[in-house]
Amino acid sequence: MSQNTFETDVVIIGGGPVGLFAVFELGLLDLKCHVIDILDRPGGQCAELYPEKPIYDIPGFPVITGQGLTDNLMAQIAPFGPQFHFSRMVTKLDKLPDGRFQLTTDADETFICKVVVIAAGGGSFQAKRPPVEGIDAYEGKSVFYAVRRMDDFRDQDVVIVGGGDSALDWTLNLQPIVRTLTLVHRRRAFRGAPDSVNKMEDLVSEGKISLLIGQIARVEGENGQLSRVHFATEAGDVSLPATRMLPFFGLTMKLGPVGDWGLELNDNLIAVDTEKFATSVPGVFAIGDINTYPGKLKLILSGFHEAALMAQAAKKIVSPDERVVFQYTTSSTKLQKKLGVA
Amino acid sequence: MSQNTFETDVVIIGGGPVGLFAVFELGLLDLKCHVIDILDRPGGQCAELYPEKPIYDIPGFPVITGQGLTDNLMAQIAPFGPQFHFSRMVTKLDKLPDGRFQLTTDADETFICKVVVIAAGGGSFQAKRPPVEGIDAYEGKSVFYAVRRMDDFRDQDVVIVGGGDSALDWTLNLQPIVRTLTLVHRRRAFRGAPDSVNKMEDLVSEGKISLLIGQIARVEGENGQLSRVHFATEAGDVSLPATRMLPFFGLTMKLGPVGDWGLELNDNLIAVDTEKFATSVPGVFAIGDINTYPGKLKLILSGFHEAALMAQAAKKIVSPDERVVFQYTTSSTKLQKKLGVA
Repeated sequence: MSQNTFETDVVIIGGGPVGLFAVFELGLLDLKCHVIDILDRPGGQCAELYPEKPIYDIPGFPVITGQGLTDNLMAQIAPFGPQFHFSRMVTKLDKLPDGRFQLTTDADETFICKVVVIAAGGGSFQAKRPPVEGIDAYEGKSVFYAVRRMDDFRDQDVVIVGGGDSALDWTLNLQPIVRTLTLVHRRRAFRGAPDSVNKMEDLVSEGKISLLIGQIARVEGENGQLSRVHFATEAGDVSLPATRMLPFFGLTMKLGPVGDWGLELNDNLIAVDTEKFATSVPGVFAIGDINTYPGKLKLILSGFHEAALMAQAAKKIVSPDERVVFQYTTSSTKLQKKLGVA
Repeated sequence: MSQNTFETDVVIIGGGPVGLFAVFELGLLDLKCHVIDILDRPGGQCAELYPEKPIYDIPGFPVITGQGLTDNLMAQIAPFGPQFHFSRMVTKLDKLPDGRFQLTTDADETFICKVVVIAAGGGSFQAKRPPVEGIDAYEGKSVFYAVRRMDDFRDQDVVIVGGGDSALDWTLNLQPIVRTLTLVHRRRAFRGAPDSVNKMEDLVSEGKISLLIGQIARVEGENGQLSRVHFATEAGDVSLPATRMLPFFGLTMKLGPVGDWGLELNDNLIAVDTEKFATSVPGVFAIGDINTYPGKLKLILSGFHEAALMAQAAKKIVSPDERVVFQYTTSSTKLQKKLGVA
């Protein structure tokens, strides 16, 4: 088996709060999980969109932040040792002749499992692509929508496009290691934190970076390697030498490849039953914001319930001959041993 | 309207974690609630059966006690000002000609409401009655199954029957205020906390209480006022003067009066749908351990989900003409104002 192939009981697509809690419910039933997420850390929307924003409707927490909830859930599932694979998108889901599933990621990994749990929230977070012809040829080579490794930008001529926190933060963080850096925004006003705006303006005054007001018009280069970027400005066409570009045009949520796996959809959500939260493909479950059923509310607390009922059904698929006695963590020494507290 | 009549939007029967969280979900939708519980405090089974026992499967809490969860939920629902009525059992549910419901309690209160939410867990906690003929004539007058007011026992000849923590705790707590106290248990070994057993033995040694090994056989008295209790012991019939008796033969859970309200039952549980958690009687909902549907798990976290979906349906009944826009506490200033945080 290749180094990039993993065999496990369950693959959970999505590491938001619902995907994380699924690890707990599956773990109580002795099922081992791998969790794959397109973001670079656990927490999903909670951690990406509102890490510091208070949430008031998690039962038992008068108030908790998205990051706080994520941290608590990570502690709660730690006894089950889930394996995480971040910054990857599951691109393919195939059924193997032996009845198991094979998932493939855009990082060339393969996962073999008996049960697939889709807990992908609003879908995949995907960067919005600038409206420039032929930009896709450069993506992942010299045009990036996120900084996975800062070293990719060392000693490069970097152009950052955008006016929000991501554009400003990476301007400040990358400036010390690049050869040149130009920040481009379509207007003079920035949406980011005032402190970041001030720091950026200081770097401009000190001549350490350039600021250009304009809109991206065209890219130049070959074999995926960018050489120049052209901008439309009030003064006309301006072009810059550029070996790396980071366009920050915001994130969009797309159902993504999940939409192509032959699952029954309902208004771009995955249709499930309310007994097992099973999709139309046996062995594939969908929990949390990505599913739909009569009465569905997109609440984190509903995803927790869905994870618990799904786990019972998943157990029957992974261990069809095992008789499962439903037990409570409060009274079962067996469950408490799994949790490492008895 | 009598002093003992209350009008409100929703009456919740049961103040366990699920009933408490229902106050929150209904409160977000501007519905006012009264909560009625047979126990003398909030928390239901959590507070009654395992206040100090750790629970491990509440999402976001690697560990929390039943009391801790209850306290947190009470803080979470405080902004909505629910009104609590403890130590009462709802005995009757009637439909009024105007479509509203009228509930009657065993404390002679009447509640008029548009929606009834049954969150009664395993049903009513009821004390097990000792197998003694005619004991029911003394109940609530001189025979009690719980201590509601300690003063009822001041300067009385008290007999406490039982070998568990309740019997031991009340022996220790009442001893300073009674005239005489006799603890009766059917065998020499006690099931209670060793420390309580030691303290009780000390009181016996000091001559402050009596200990009798035997089984209750007969009660004597008139007009509900106990005068003597007879016990079968190894030495034969022993009788004691007694003006108060506290038999602690354990609690039993009974569906109770809820079983007589014409709701569709399934194996002594209330059948509900999974869209609204509505019972077979329009306007009456059932959430938490007392309901059943395909896939049902008796988990607190499932009751939370059921409360959220029920609340949407309850709102449509209470305010049929109001258009409800589903909102999130994280982003809605309107909801945050209700919670007192914006």
